[in-house]
Amino acid sequence: MKTRIENITILTMNQEFEIIEDGFIEFDKQITCIGQGQSCHDADCIIDGHHGILMPGMINTHTHVGMIPFRSLGDDCKDRLRRFLFPLENECMTEKLAYASAKYAISEMLLSGITTFMDMYYFEDEIAKAADEMGIRAFLGETVIDFQSCDSEKPYGGLDYAKWFIPKWKNHSRIVPFIAPHATNTNCEDALKQANEISKQYNVPLSLHACEMDYEIAYFKEHYQQTPIQFLETLGLLSSRLVAAHCILLNKDDIDLLARYQVKVAHCIGSNAKAAKGVAPVKEMLEKGVHVGLGTDGPSSGNTLDMFTQFKLFADFHKNHYHDRSLFPAKNIVELGTIEGAKVLGMDAKIGSIEIGKKADLVLLETDSVNMFPIFDYYSAIVYSAQAHNVDSVFVDGQCLVRHKELVKESFQEIKKNLYDEMKEFSKKAKMYEIKK
Amino acid sequence: MKTRIENITILTMNQEFEIIEDGFIEFDKQITCIGQGQSCHDADCIIDGHHGILMPGMINTHTHVGMIPFRSLGDDCKDRLRRFLFPLENECMTEKLAYASAKYAISEMLLSGITTFMDMYYFEDEIAKAADEMGIRAFLGETVIDFQSCDSEKPYGGLDYAKWFIPKWKNHSRIVPFIAPHATNTNCEDALKQANEISKQYNVPLSLHACEMDYEIAYFKEHYQQTPIQFLETLGLLSSRLVAAHCILLNKDDIDLLARYQVKVAHCIGSNAKAAKGVAPVKEMLEKGVHVGLGTDGPSSGNTLDMFTQFKLFADFHKNHYHDRSLFPAKNIVELGTIEGAKVLGMDAKIGSIEIGKKADLVLLETDSVNMFPIFDYYSAIVYSAQAHNVDSVFVDGQCLVRHKELVKESFQEIKKNLYDEMKEFSKKAKMYEIKK
Repeated sequence: MKTRIENITILTMNQEFEIIEDGFIEFDKQITCIGQGQSCHDADCIIDGHHGILMPGMINTHTHVGMIPFRSLGDDCKDRLRRFLFPLENECMTEKLAYASAKYAISEMLLSGITTFMDMYYFEDEIAKAADEMGIRAFLGETVIDFQSCDSEKPYGGLDYAKWFIPKWKNHSRIVPFIAPHATNTNCEDALKQANEISKQYNVPLSLHACEMDYEIAYFKEHYQQTPIQFLETLGLLSSRLVAAHCILLNKDDIDLLARYQVKVAHCIGSNAKAAKGVAPVKEMLEKGVHVGLGTDGPSSGNTLDMFTQFKLFADFHKNHYHDRSLFPAKNIVELGTIEGAKVLGMDAKIGSIEIGKKADLVLLETDSVNMFPIFDYYSAIVYSAQAHNVDSVFVDGQCLVRHKELVKESFQEIKKNLYDEMKEFSKKAKMYEIKK
Repeated sequence: MKTRIENITILTMNQEFEIIEDGFIEFDKQITCIGQGQSCHDADCIIDGHHGILMPGMINTHTHVGMIPFRSLGDDCKDRLRRFLFPLENECMTEKLAYASAKYAISEMLLSGITTFMDMYYFEDEIAKAADEMGIRAFLGETVIDFQSCDSEKPYGGLDYAKWFIPKWKNHSRIVPFIAPHATNTNCEDALKQANEISKQYNVPLSLHACEMDYEIAYFKEHYQQTPIQFLETLGLLSSRLVAAHCILLNKDDIDLLARYQVKVAHCIGSNAKAAKGVAPVKEMLEKGVHVGLGTDGPSSGNTLDMFTQFKLFADFHKNHYHDRSLFPAKNIVELGTIEGAKVLGMDAKIGSIEIGKKADLVLLETDSVNMFPIFDYYSAIVYSAQAHNVDSVFVDGQCLVRHKELVKESFQEIKKNLYDEMKEFSKKAKMYEIKK
């Protein structure tokens, strides 16, 4: 089945940042033709883009799709992670709830133009089923952590889970399974090494939270006289397979190490700032050649699962931090959310830009809504004006998953109802936690 | 005509931050009844709120509604004000364009739940006409500046304009005219004093940009050995009539002066951060009792005219700045956008909260969209999750101006077409400026 979209402006995000006004595109699973004006080819389905903007599907390099139930719970509380999230997760998170949450979160991402996401959570097999059904592209990492968790009776149960989960999904066309030790300071050395061995053995990514917490830095300084990044180097974890989330509290040597080992970074400005953790040195990382993608973080941390929120926050925080409004012009921020994200996932040959032969992961933004006029600069409009709601249509592998702002394959109402039903026990307990706070 | 909305959660934003779940409200021009469950009164029109959130109409304390044509133009350029905005304004801004832009900007604000705004621009008589027609509440200040401007052949023409404009609109039920010297450093002492006299004579506010620019601070230090706030004190401009926009670069003494003279502040975090100007000391101002409202700034600076964008940025910037996630809990941020904004405008007896006898300026948020579930904390949902698109209905003075996300009184398509037509000359010139940059 071949689709053509015409009457659009195409932001290719190719190396030349080529923009094609009055453009058209044709694709099946892959992009087969891009041009200006009218196409001369055949297509089974022709879509009038109504002067919209076609951009590559956005890439969310860090999230926790099982965590929709936690949204708006204890947002402004100190040590929320240990007071709300960990205990409630252990008490209430189930296979069914993780699945229902993942379906909801994937709906939210698709509706906002995210076509690929990298997830770390529990019950990743359920999340894989959700991603498989919904047609999105997903990197899914089972969490390894030093305590009993919702999907394991013993600490570090994620190691065994991953050994079963990774081979099960490894040959899926849209799903890449991987292993996700929770953080530098929530795993012992041995567990981190074992996780790394699994990552090597199956040649899949390893992702963890790193250099995110003040107490994490203090812990490694006290116990190892090292930074967390130096500690990871000692254990042999630094490699091009590693995607380190957050990386806020880095020194210059840390950045050099990340660059030397070709470690990738998932930068979550919204989550980091809301939790008052600081602004990661993205400028310095990029200058050293470290690939940095953007992440929404989980819906409990970043609250909304769309990249537009991150784009705006990224611009405002990094410009303000360096006292330079010309730093990170809008097109470079869109770059972080598309082709740079693809580089973080090692997928830049296949996704992240609109080029012939690449996978047809595409987003059509409408420009009819009140916030989208005038447009003198398409990148500016995307970074400073656009919101999730402006996403009209979304394609993954050429398959239409969102059309006219609604899911195509599934009923959002049903997905929401299922989550609501599965959340009953969780919601009761969550309200008790709210009262205790 | 009496309207009842039922099946809603009411965030009253009264002094006790009272929340009424399963609530109803009745109003004509004013709020006549608030309660829980079913109302026992009569109403001409009954609206089912579908489990939505009813909040006070939001108050935008600083914007420039004539500037829609500039949106997305030269966003990331250094000294954009003098390289793009001032010259293009002088070349291309006309009476008709200001009017067309105001209609568009007011549409955008109404659709995002802003029911009152404070504007500074040129051709304010046109903007008053637009506000009058559209039913929004507006504080409108004619700009006074030290050069020939788009609506005056001579410098400081705004002084004469204001003398004609203020009495013309002073008795309008929804419009408060005022005078707006552009900034501390774009007016001579005499013009500032004259503007202040006009403000006194008509007992209307005076608003200006203050302590926004590095070079402004340097200028007053060099020429007066004063801060801009000290300079304003010397001239007699500090008073409870003054609304100072931005106030980023304040020292402790400046804050004391603002408090002593009961000066009000319009804080525009989105615009300030994007332009890399810093984070205003809002915590310190509030601690000293200075009233601080939030502002979108103009659509060229803040890009979108909605308070949700400002709420999220406010939370993230101020929490991160003080390295404390518990600072400014969500309810206090909603407070800044509602009742605190009303205090800035001296209107808190009439608007800013949902209380019997107050004007029926109301916003109904739908909670059906994907970003609005679950809601454990209503304020969190508004600050961290909600977007302009979630605004379902808007009332000003009890009149329904937005229903089901569409303007009631006017056609947005027509407003957009008029602006597009009026912008033709502007757009041509703007593109030439883009190329030169």
